[in-house]
Amino acid sequence: MSHTIKEKQSLLLRAKRIRGQVEALVRVLDEERDCSEVLQVMSAARGAMNSLMAELLEGHIRSHVLEGKHKPSSQQTVAAEEVIDMVKSYLK
Amino acid sequence: MSHTIKEKQSLLLRAKRIRGQVEALVRVLDEERDCSEVLQVMSAARGAMNSLMAELLEGHIRSHVLEGKHKPSSQQTVAAEEVIDMVKSYLK
Amino acid sequence: MSHTIKEKQSLLLRAKRIRGQVEALVRVLDEERDCSEVLQVMSAARGAMNSLMAELLEGHIRSHVLEGKHKPSSQQTVAAEEVIDMVKSYLK
Amino acid sequence: MSHTIKEKQSLLLRAKRIRGQVEALVRVLDEERDCSEVLQVMSAARGAMNSLMAELLEGHIRSHVLEGKHKPSSQQTVAAEEVIDMVKSYLK
Repeated sequence: MSHTIKEKQSLLLRAKRIRGQVEALVRVLDEERDCSEVLQVMSAARGAMNSLMAELLEGHIRSHVLEGKHKPSSQQTVAAEEVIDMVKSYLK
Repeated sequence: MSHTIKEKQSLLLRAKRIRGQVEALVRVLDEERDCSEVLQVMSAARGAMNSLMAELLEGHIRSHVLEGKHKPSSQQTVAAEEVIDMVKSYLK
Repeated sequence: MSHTIKEKQSLLLRAKRIRGQVEALVRVLDEERDCSEVLQVMSAARGAMNSLMAELLEGHIRSHVLEGKHKPSSQQTVAAEEVIDMVKSYLK
Repeated sequence: MSHTIKEKQSLLLRAKRIRGQVEALVRVLDEERDCSEVLQVMSAARGAMNSLMAELLEGHIRSHVLEGKHKPSSQQTVAAEEVIDMVKSYLK
């Protein structure tokens, strides 16, 4: 089963939270709020997006690259973890 | 006048487009669509967000750091352009 | 055979070019050259480093995550390509 | 006085440390060391480079965008700090 289905509830919750943050961004722009506030709302939404992106990529690597018809070797698993760690650190 | 007010219509349009992309993300997750599709929708939304973030930072530098009571010197203007170019290239 | 051995000559050449760029950075700082020049040299070195990092990660995914005792399925190969594309776009 | 001169010793030290890290990268590639080790050395060098880049950009904003013939207003200073914080968080 795909990670996006196995983790559906948690991913959906996070995507909805980002939607809320982007709605807040639309609102602060529309209400002509202080530019610093706009930047902060934008920055928070971007951070949440990056973090969800990292989560999706991690699941993609684990479920679709590593797992297949055959069980991955322990070397493959270790290499996958290294890639995941780096992807996460770039998307922080 | 703040750049977020001067450019209000264009910024608002872009923020609303991102809202649409995040709504699409919620939908593909909810409909349990293929993981590759989820990643693509997510990646497009993230790209649009980075690009709006770069735009907001550029405006912030121009309107609020560079411009003040006194006219900036041409050296200050050049230095600001260099910072803007780099910020843009990081957020591409 | 590991990708860092298979591609040794090309990777080594790129690493040496980055070494040259970092030596140039040390030099412009030491010679108290104009700050804009320092930033440009630094920025070029950073770009080259990101690009080599992306190359190394791509090889790691292909050689060590995807390839193992068993041949990867075409779904696994496609998923790996998707991850590689995204990693590359983040490190541009 | 430019920040790259005022902070010369500290910036130079950091640039030389990065040079050492890139020399280590050349060495591990040349000695055909384990790919995971290559990735770690590369990743550390890249992190140090990003952190020096953030430092240089911060100094550039403070010394060359903010400071000019006239003293910046407190609003300009606050806006500059906001830009610096964001640039730093992107280059972490």
